[in-house]
Amino acid sequence: MQLGLVGLGRMGGNMRERLRTAGHEVVGYDPNPDLADVASLAEMVEKLATPRAVWIMVPAGVTEQTVDELAALLSDGDIIIDGGNSRYSDDLPRSERLNAVGVGYIDVGVSGGVWGRENGYALMVGGSEEHVERLMPIFESLKPAGEFGFVHAGPVGAGHYAKMVHNGIEYGLMHAYAEGYELLCKSELVTNVPGVFKSWREGTVVRSWLLDLLDIALEEDPELTSLRGYADDTGEGRWTVEEAIRLAVPMNVIAASLFARFASRQDDSPAMKAIAALRQQFGGHAIHKN
Amino acid sequence: MQLGLVGLGRMGGNMRERLRTAGHEVVGYDPNPDLADVASLAEMVEKLATPRAVWIMVPAGVTEQTVDELAALLSDGDIIIDGGNSRYSDDLPRSERLNAVGVGYIDVGVSGGVWGRENGYALMVGGSEEHVERLMPIFESLKPAGEFGFVHAGPVGAGHYAKMVHNGIEYGLMHAYAEGYELLCKSELVTNVPGVFKSWREGTVVRSWLLDLLDIALEEDPELTSLRGYADDTGEGRWTVEEAIRLAVPMNVIAASLFARFASRQDDSPAMKAIAALRQQFGGHAIHKN
Amino acid sequence: MQLGLVGLGRMGGNMRERLRTAGHEVVGYDPNPDLADVASLAEMVEKLATPRAVWIMVPAGVTEQTVDELAALLSDGDIIIDGGNSRYSDDLPRSERLNAVGVGYIDVGVSGGVWGRENGYALMVGGSEEHVERLMPIFESLKPAGEFGFVHAGPVGAGHYAKMVHNGIEYGLMHAYAEGYELLCKSELVTNVPGVFKSWREGTVVRSWLLDLLDIALEEDPELTSLRGYADDTGEGRWTVEEAIRLAVPMNVIAASLFARFASRQDDSPAMKAIAALRQQFGGHAIHKN
Amino acid sequence: MQLGLVGLGRMGGNMRERLRTAGHEVVGYDPNPDLADVASLAEMVEKLATPRAVWIMVPAGVTEQTVDELAALLSDGDIIIDGGNSRYSDDLPRSERLNAVGVGYIDVGVSGGVWGRENGYALMVGGSEEHVERLMPIFESLKPAGEFGFVHAGPVGAGHYAKMVHNGIEYGLMHAYAEGYELLCKSELVTNVPGVFKSWREGTVVRSWLLDLLDIALEEDPELTSLRGYADDTGEGRWTVEEAIRLAVPMNVIAASLFARFASRQDDSPAMKAIAALRQQFGGHAIHKN
Repeated sequence: MQLGLVGLGRMGGNMRERLRTAGHEVVGYDPNPDLADVASLAEMVEKLATPRAVWIMVPAGVTEQTVDELAALLSDGDIIIDGGNSRYSDDLPRSERLNAVGVGYIDVGVSGGVWGRENGYALMVGGSEEHVERLMPIFESLKPAGEFGFVHAGPVGAGHYAKMVHNGIEYGLMHAYAEGYELLCKSELVTNVPGVFKSWREGTVVRSWLLDLLDIALEEDPELTSLRGYADDTGEGRWTVEEAIRLAVPMNVIAASLFARFASRQDDSPAMKAIAALRQQFGGHAIHKN
Repeated sequence: MQLGLVGLGRMGGNMRERLRTAGHEVVGYDPNPDLADVASLAEMVEKLATPRAVWIMVPAGVTEQTVDELAALLSDGDIIIDGGNSRYSDDLPRSERLNAVGVGYIDVGVSGGVWGRENGYALMVGGSEEHVERLMPIFESLKPAGEFGFVHAGPVGAGHYAKMVHNGIEYGLMHAYAEGYELLCKSELVTNVPGVFKSWREGTVVRSWLLDLLDIALEEDPELTSLRGYADDTGEGRWTVEEAIRLAVPMNVIAASLFARFASRQDDSPAMKAIAALRQQFGGHAIHKN
Repeated sequence: MQLGLVGLGRMGGNMRERLRTAGHEVVGYDPNPDLADVASLAEMVEKLATPRAVWIMVPAGVTEQTVDELAALLSDGDIIIDGGNSRYSDDLPRSERLNAVGVGYIDVGVSGGVWGRENGYALMVGGSEEHVERLMPIFESLKPAGEFGFVHAGPVGAGHYAKMVHNGIEYGLMHAYAEGYELLCKSELVTNVPGVFKSWREGTVVRSWLLDLLDIALEEDPELTSLRGYADDTGEGRWTVEEAIRLAVPMNVIAASLFARFASRQDDSPAMKAIAALRQQFGGHAIHKN
Repeated sequence: MQLGLVGLGRMGGNMRERLRTAGHEVVGYDPNPDLADVASLAEMVEKLATPRAVWIMVPAGVTEQTVDELAALLSDGDIIIDGGNSRYSDDLPRSERLNAVGVGYIDVGVSGGVWGRENGYALMVGGSEEHVERLMPIFESLKPAGEFGFVHAGPVGAGHYAKMVHNGIEYGLMHAYAEGYELLCKSELVTNVPGVFKSWREGTVVRSWLLDLLDIALEEDPELTSLRGYADDTGEGRWTVEEAIRLAVPMNVIAASLFARFASRQDDSPAMKAIAALRQQFGGHAIHKN
């Protein structure tokens, strides 16, 4: 089927390839003319037959504006799909705004990263039965080949919600491996840490895709000497913990994973300065001066 | 090759089958005569040609005693392999005791649970090059078919150490999924929680064997209504955190997973009683009486 | 000086007493006529000479509405003081709305609970120098007698912000004692747990007002048998952790204290059900049926 | 009464002063002749009339050896008091060894740090009724003046146990303040962070001796610029968490405080390197190179 695709960066560009390979007609727009099929959003919309479907794959910061520009160009019965990392709570207001001008809205959480073009993208979809039905040919081509990798998770917002939780879980999984890695590194007994991780790839309870990736990383750099222990966070982890707080869900593991990333970006910890100050006050404990 | 096997419960029994299928000659002993091939440890030892190898697969509580009984029956050049869930710190003293009477010692962390007979058992091995070399035919048959699932992790103790960390990581992984599950259950937006988990099995960053199992469990019982939120712990999780403390490794995630299991087994929390008492004292906050 | 006081519940009522004892003229309004000095907000405003100052001490849920009703009655140069548990982020918009009609705004975090009437209330104040200056006679009378208990923390919002952090810290402090209490209760060695807490009230590093309260509670009920381990949370704890997330501050301790309260209110834990389901799947571990 | 005192460092030296001021006859021994009253343990023992009482106040590492040397010098009916930071689990074996030669044993957890000489030392005591009774004149003089600061917590070991938990709680309390401090420092609203802490010293729920000390520290150095965020840990915090693990007590707060100290001493975090490696693998996320 025909699809407009806005945003042709690492994710959007690869998705265009995968969709074309599957036989779809994709009209792609990107502000970078080297990537774009058309010169403007208006030209993209013009090239699509009604009822149109336009998939947005842009950085979270420009999603709202892109939606509004598109809304002004689209007509009654068209659908906008947001496949970016929007916060789920933005979906319903956006949907209502679009519905008011006759445009439908679907939110899709997309997982797969740089591996998606080849393996397929896992899709978590929020929207009405009718809208999701209409987009199924696109979803079918984007998703992985097997029986998994696609879910219609609920009404508008549910797709980004599921993706948010997916990423929160991802934080926790990664940190569990990371803590185990550090302990093995510190152990006097285990002399072959990368070998231990490699061995776990089959037959163990902890086997996973993330473990496979860690093995690959350790093969390239067995002691990870080339890397700083520094990690950014990209929104979904924070939103997951905030949502847990809103719904009174105990979330020690994912929160701890998030806090560890915060700490990894600090040169010095104000909290630990306060600890040092207190220890100096009550016990005359040695301190480390700046 | 020939192998003595002590302990023919769920794990040992399945391992005997897998080894026999691979062509090894296994002489199995178990206190339960319905399971045993021989009537006593002595008879088992008698049936093995020197230099012998005897694999122990018994509950942690009786390992020490089994090792001692065997040591009295074995001769110079024989090897004992402990495949049970011993604490790594028991391995070196045990090994030294055996070495003093000419018997070698290998420790093996075994993963795979009830699925191991068919898929193979992941093996993490500690011991000398020479001893491990001698047992390789057995290890080769027990491990999964592919290139993974076996590691010689280091000297005596390293096998159980690696298995301990494996289990610690397992605690953290499980709890990350569990927290995500609870959040999805509480969400007003996601109407298809089991479907979300199922979808994650392909194309996502969080795909893993544990996720596959959670999907299977949710297929059987979509809201897990048949289960109590109660979990035992089996030693390795505690040892992992204790070892982190010994080596000054920050381990918030795995520790939180362990503590959540402790809490799951409490009818009421003394700590939270203290919180309730304090709130009543300073704020006249409503309390819940027993 | 003259002060209008809206809300004469446990906090507001006691504050009226403390202010009158100090010689101020307080005109109190409350929807409950048994508590009120006047029959309406309008009557209260009428009885105050301009420029007026009106202190609001109402539940967070009705603060906004109370502010709006008052704003309609007040005149240029009057000041509203919000001493309730508002979220700090509501202060600036509220202040701007009031400023637009010539009314000033001060936010005050108030601590002291049921003990405040006698001991004084700790006050954390946000607002302009000029407004705070004008209210100083009131602040002086409400605060404790000594050199502490009052701070002008910053511009509008800073008072509620400081109070929010105060309450977040309070969560962590309480939980530290609570964990220690539980450990002592479980110990086979310590036979006099209440005596240990009582002894800590002098000479130790952990002495505090909360410890004094815990001692009082344990004197009344040495094993806290009359209480359920159940604790509500009142907003500030959640806001503190949310703010930590916004500002990328690692906050493991306060977050864990908050999560423990969430868990204390659950009959069964969905997360632990997922753990039980996983353990059953991979290990055939015994589960606890509902 | 007469008391032998072994170890005249910061703690022991001050205790000798406090005891002498109270009228006791203290014979102090220390390997440093500048501090000692006598030249040897033997001379100290000789100067004491039977039945003797000898208080040991030495670093944990030399306690066992000191006890043994003393045991060889003492006679039937004498008592050894260990006021150092021994692990509680060492007390019972030590006591049994001493009892076998007719010497009694009391363990005392001592709190008070550099402030104890003036304010008194909080004492948590483990031992038999009879032995504790005999030492009461000494305890009375060491403890603070008021009704608190002393507890006979239980049999041998209970004193060090109570002190261990005291220190565990201390870790949690300090970290709660520290997290609040960091959040206030990061806030854009609060312009007077030291003033906020100072104000909390009266009328608030969070007032405590530790808060007083933090205020003093902030008065000297409002942004703690002179300190590194680095903190050692001294054993009791680790033992507290290990004991929680042994007794299946959830201890998220104190454990998190302990882990934060571990992290404060790392130049780079192996765990966070693993996180960075994983993020690079699956998402092509930017990493920070060494």
